[in-house]
Amino acid sequence: MTNQGNNLDKWYSHYADRTAGLAASEVRALFAVASRPEVVSLAGGMPFVSALPKELVTGAMERVMRDSGPAALQYGSGQGLPALREHILEVMALEGIRASVDDIVVTTGSQHALELVTKLFINPGDVVLAEAPSYLTAITVFKSFQAEVSHVAMDEFGLIPQALREAITRVKAAGKTIKFLYTVPTFSNPAGVTLTWERRLEILEIARSNGILVLEDNPYGLLYFDGPPPHAMRSVEEDGVIYLGTFSKTLAPGFRVGWALAPHAIREKLILANEAAVLSPSSFTQYVIHEYLAGADWKGQIETFRGVYRERRDAMLAALEDYLPDLSWTHPAGGFYVWVTLPENLDSKSMLPRAVKELVAYTPGTAFYADGGGRNKLRLAFCYPTPEFIREGIRRLSTVINGELELLTTFSQTGPLKTVKPSASMINPPANLG
Amino acid sequence: MTNQGNNLDKWYSHYADRTAGLAASEVRALFAVASRPEVVSLAGGMPFVSALPKELVTGAMERVMRDSGPAALQYGSGQGLPALREHILEVMALEGIRASVDDIVVTTGSQHALELVTKLFINPGDVVLAEAPSYLTAITVFKSFQAEVSHVAMDEFGLIPQALREAITRVKAAGKTIKFLYTVPTFSNPAGVTLTWERRLEILEIARSNGILVLEDNPYGLLYFDGPPPHAMRSVEEDGVIYLGTFSKTLAPGFRVGWALAPHAIREKLILANEAAVLSPSSFTQYVIHEYLAGADWKGQIETFRGVYRERRDAMLAALEDYLPDLSWTHPAGGFYVWVTLPENLDSKSMLPRAVKELVAYTPGTAFYADGGGRNKLRLAFCYPTPEFIREGIRRLSTVINGELELLTTFSQTGPLKTVKPSASMINPPANLG
Repeated sequence: MTNQGNNLDKWYSHYADRTAGLAASEVRALFAVASRPEVVSLAGGMPFVSALPKELVTGAMERVMRDSGPAALQYGSGQGLPALREHILEVMALEGIRASVDDIVVTTGSQHALELVTKLFINPGDVVLAEAPSYLTAITVFKSFQAEVSHVAMDEFGLIPQALREAITRVKAAGKTIKFLYTVPTFSNPAGVTLTWERRLEILEIARSNGILVLEDNPYGLLYFDGPPPHAMRSVEEDGVIYLGTFSKTLAPGFRVGWALAPHAIREKLILANEAAVLSPSSFTQYVIHEYLAGADWKGQIETFRGVYRERRDAMLAALEDYLPDLSWTHPAGGFYVWVTLPENLDSKSMLPRAVKELVAYTPGTAFYADGGGRNKLRLAFCYPTPEFIREGIRRLSTVINGELELLTTFSQTGPLKTVKPSASMINPPANLG
Repeated sequence: MTNQGNNLDKWYSHYADRTAGLAASEVRALFAVASRPEVVSLAGGMPFVSALPKELVTGAMERVMRDSGPAALQYGSGQGLPALREHILEVMALEGIRASVDDIVVTTGSQHALELVTKLFINPGDVVLAEAPSYLTAITVFKSFQAEVSHVAMDEFGLIPQALREAITRVKAAGKTIKFLYTVPTFSNPAGVTLTWERRLEILEIARSNGILVLEDNPYGLLYFDGPPPHAMRSVEEDGVIYLGTFSKTLAPGFRVGWALAPHAIREKLILANEAAVLSPSSFTQYVIHEYLAGADWKGQIETFRGVYRERRDAMLAALEDYLPDLSWTHPAGGFYVWVTLPENLDSKSMLPRAVKELVAYTPGTAFYADGGGRNKLRLAFCYPTPEFIREGIRRLSTVINGELELLTTFSQTGPLKTVKPSASMINPPANLG
């Protein structure tokens, strides 16, 4: 909220303090720009839903209306449809999770689970530990409840255990309260890296011994390209982990159905918070997904998605090799994203208008930090455009980057380079992934 | 949250302060009980969705998947589908509202609009003014953000302007901040009364002169039985009113689609809060409703609903006359609810187990007060059961009430009556409504 609002908004003085943390995201303006058809958008993380055969959805809907119409049109329970929760157990079993249907709370996308968990735990000034870089809209949610986000460094193997220990010591020494560690351990957004099994165990042990709850957000785990990733952290730790899942990437985001798997007492409060927020998640979309999972080859469909995204990941990595060989980037083994490191003296945010002029869009690195980090980083999403467009997008991006570098070189002959703070991220080009 | 949790929940000390206000509602347990088929439930406010022809919904869904599949399956905008917002203008025009599509924010049911507005405005300790009695889950939301709910008396003509003035003076004298007045002015939940046109204007003027925002919640306005109710408060006041609407009662709650119509600056913040909470409301259900409104005779369908609910209202009022002639109750001219006043020495909450034993359920009056009021009140919903079941339900209820009264009379011959505090509500049997 800017002070400008003071003059334009007669209710300006009425807002809650927490709205100070509620600002338009950097991706927001991009969505408008990137929707122009001539722009190759490597910005948004939209799943390629056209790979889902229409008739699978239509068939599920028709069966729902035929067999369960009145229930699907009615209010449901705040915990979610029991039959759908049974299916969710099957989905999570693929990542090594054993649980009870009673411990699942269905939410309006896993985004809403993030919001509800944050509402349950965060007092103003509480600290959330999060990867550097971290999922943009998670940072937005944490800030909207006045949390302080403290980033923890990661490398090509994910979150660095020693960096986590140091962050905990630092925050505790400052007299602050850590409420949870937020992590996307598998095919992370935006870094595209995966936490190794050994580190999962080590980080769970650090969390346990420090009394820190782990919020494991896992939207991409089933979208692996080179073999299954390590099992979920929740597979080895029940009491200390809230696990978030979603159908947005394995089926479609338009239904807005995700879930939280939480320890008993937390789950009870999540249900109450869910009821207060929306009474119940949509019965209709829950029934449709339930019918889809019951009647269609959903595992085969996930295999189809894997093939689509694998091809696009390969196209992006090859194009980066061809057009930007001097840069470094992560090599995702699944998911949607590649994280690119520009030369230290480039600023991805100030470069963006030029990129859009060249008809390519990406998300600037600073969007994924709560603390201004990530200036010379950017996120490229390979999930939505075709391989040909991805290649063309990277070609355009190389023109932009090389143009910026030339400009800087010319400029440095007539004056000093502008000062660029070193990035907070420790992500380096991986040696052995992808 | 009870102290019991301390022993059972290892994360007990981690919860945010606001969770103290997040308790299971009195209706929650009832839903489980009332779902047994032998119980006549006059408790829950479930719309009678079976009056909606299945083929209208199926047809809309098929057209959506045929014509707009990928968009309906994709993420949408945080403000909601523009084409649906156009239709929402048509719906609101029926209640005298003129607005722009830009000022509408689509939400996951109007419940979520309530949550988002509360998140935007309430600091802990801020005061929300609300009718006495008031919508149960609105009270839950306000408390979940640590608002203090201050009730304002109503009578058969709705909120009493002089009571509002006095409440404002009282709260201000206590040095507290009033953030908004929450009201369901038309066919209110639970009281079933409607604010007169003259009072609407007077209350808007009081709000204006005291700098108080009005949150007008209008789920039932189009479900009138005896002629259209007064126009919405928003129809005469743009800057000072946030209006909430929903498709839950005129179509079906299973889609979870509602909306807020808000002044520009507030609407911008609502969109940001909506994006943080759920990224976007369900594209799929928005498209289905859009197609339904574009292709079906939705006004005729609302007429059908009116006929169904009118018949049930009539059945309930007739049964009350026949079986409980000594009690008083409101005479709703629309909506879902009748509000019954028991003799002063009866307690509707402690009477409930006996009612369930007699196979009838209702919602105790205390559920609709934040301050313990409503002990000798109860809410009867006529929306869901058939007229025959409603009559049988009231017959059973009369047995329970008469049994309680006999018990009290007997008891009073051997000892003192238990002390019953006078109710805070001023609702009396209406002389001239219904």
